[in-house]
Amino acid sequence: MQMSRIAICAPATPITRSHAEALQNLVAEEFPEHSVEFHPQCFAVDGHFAGPDALRAEALVDCANDPNFDTVWFAKGGYGSNRIAQAAISFMNEHARQKTYAGFSDCGYLLAALYRHDIGQSVHAPMPVSARSERGREGVRRSLRWFAGDTSGLEPSLDGKTPAVAFNLITLCMVAGSPLMPDVTDHVVMVEEVSEHLYAVDRLFFQLTNLLEPGIAGIRLGAITAVPENDREFGQSAEEIAQYWCARMGIPYLGRAQIGHTVDNRVVPFGLASPAAAT
Amino acid sequence: MQMSRIAICAPATPITRSHAEALQNLVAEEFPEHSVEFHPQCFAVDGHFAGPDALRAEALVDCANDPNFDTVWFAKGGYGSNRIAQAAISFMNEHARQKTYAGFSDCGYLLAALYRHDIGQSVHAPMPVSARSERGREGVRRSLRWFAGDTSGLEPSLDGKTPAVAFNLITLCMVAGSPLMPDVTDHVVMVEEVSEHLYAVDRLFFQLTNLLEPGIAGIRLGAITAVPENDREFGQSAEEIAQYWCARMGIPYLGRAQIGHTVDNRVVPFGLASPAAAT
Repeated sequence: MQMSRIAICAPATPITRSHAEALQNLVAEEFPEHSVEFHPQCFAVDGHFAGPDALRAEALVDCANDPNFDTVWFAKGGYGSNRIAQAAISFMNEHARQKTYAGFSDCGYLLAALYRHDIGQSVHAPMPVSARSERGREGVRRSLRWFAGDTSGLEPSLDGKTPAVAFNLITLCMVAGSPLMPDVTDHVVMVEEVSEHLYAVDRLFFQLTNLLEPGIAGIRLGAITAVPENDREFGQSAEEIAQYWCARMGIPYLGRAQIGHTVDNRVVPFGLASPAAAT
Repeated sequence: MQMSRIAICAPATPITRSHAEALQNLVAEEFPEHSVEFHPQCFAVDGHFAGPDALRAEALVDCANDPNFDTVWFAKGGYGSNRIAQAAISFMNEHARQKTYAGFSDCGYLLAALYRHDIGQSVHAPMPVSARSERGREGVRRSLRWFAGDTSGLEPSLDGKTPAVAFNLITLCMVAGSPLMPDVTDHVVMVEEVSEHLYAVDRLFFQLTNLLEPGIAGIRLGAITAVPENDREFGQSAEEIAQYWCARMGIPYLGRAQIGHTVDNRVVPFGLASPAAAT
């Protein structure tokens, strides 16, 4: 069993002390090989964000550049890591290049930028904010097992041969038109979405399939959850939307992926960082 | 007083017969110089859309290519004109190049694509769907006056010297990363938004300022209306968001614009198609 010294910061929105306690209790009881340290910035509040941009960037750089940590785990998504990604990357040192960076949803901006700049290992994975509920803890355990070298929480379509990335759909659309975008040639691109109307999902697929450079291995559709009710039915399911745009834009549609804002959200190490999932 | 022979189609979502009657009554009573004809496709329904993609594209091409009309007016936004824009453009003939095309919101995909391909005159303007309410009719009259050569409904910052475009913010973000995007070098770019959280507006400005090519004259912010309540305050106003991203990305912020999903939505002919507004 590998141990990991885990630093936690909040590049987007804040968590509370009770979120932190819930995670610390879980680690103490079930993962005593790990240590977790919450950067005080996790609890800072500045309007929508976990502190001003400069504070969030500084906390991330503190965690990334500290040789006493192996893993930087993002506490929570929400919105805001896009505002600090480029600045934070520019301050990262040699120690930052040795680390695992884990999170998902809005933290995809950072996973993308780190992957683009070949800094450490980006991993789409459940986050500390979910540790307060029994269902949420199932996902959090998946991340903690991955940090310990246990690959049982991997997304089941990962074959150990095709590189992959996983993103929230809106986040990837935003990333794809920005300097944060990594080269995803030959990659399986997995996308998930939460709390968006199906017409908005359709619109995002229009955008994504326009912005992606040619040459990806294909798209897999994660969970599309908490779709708000509209005044009328959209007329296509989320999977039909993905199939429509992939067919129209000449991108292989590869089927579903077990990622999303659900308890089944699995671990997707970016690139080729994992063995094949044992499905 | 100029007359205009106006064809109405619905490239996105449908209207009802009562919307059509309200507009026809308004035209008969106040603008007898104009004629309006609703394409039957306006009332077609296919899930979210005013008929399947092929039907919507065909109706738009019918209206555009018919020498018996001077103006094509989009009945309503909603979502969907992005799915048909490129196909419709590819079928347009010489008559289509003589026309005015008017609408806004989701119909911005078409205004953009027409402007890119130098087909007729794109005009951001209120739409027929608003003719049922007294407040909505104020906007509709602005469009009908513009079709009659009366420039009193122009957006007041238009100076007759600086080319301009006007868009819904999400629509422009989607357009900007797609083959529909026109060259907006040296243009004032006006953007408005409705029913989006302020964090989403911030995210859209991140995207827009990344996607816009350098060299625009600047951004003007239209109305940001019907912002849903969030669990906490964002911490910046919509105008502060626009100012933040413009400053960060080196784009001049030029102040407010009178466009939006409001009764004050003014007319913005794309490019340099109008004289200075009489403010």
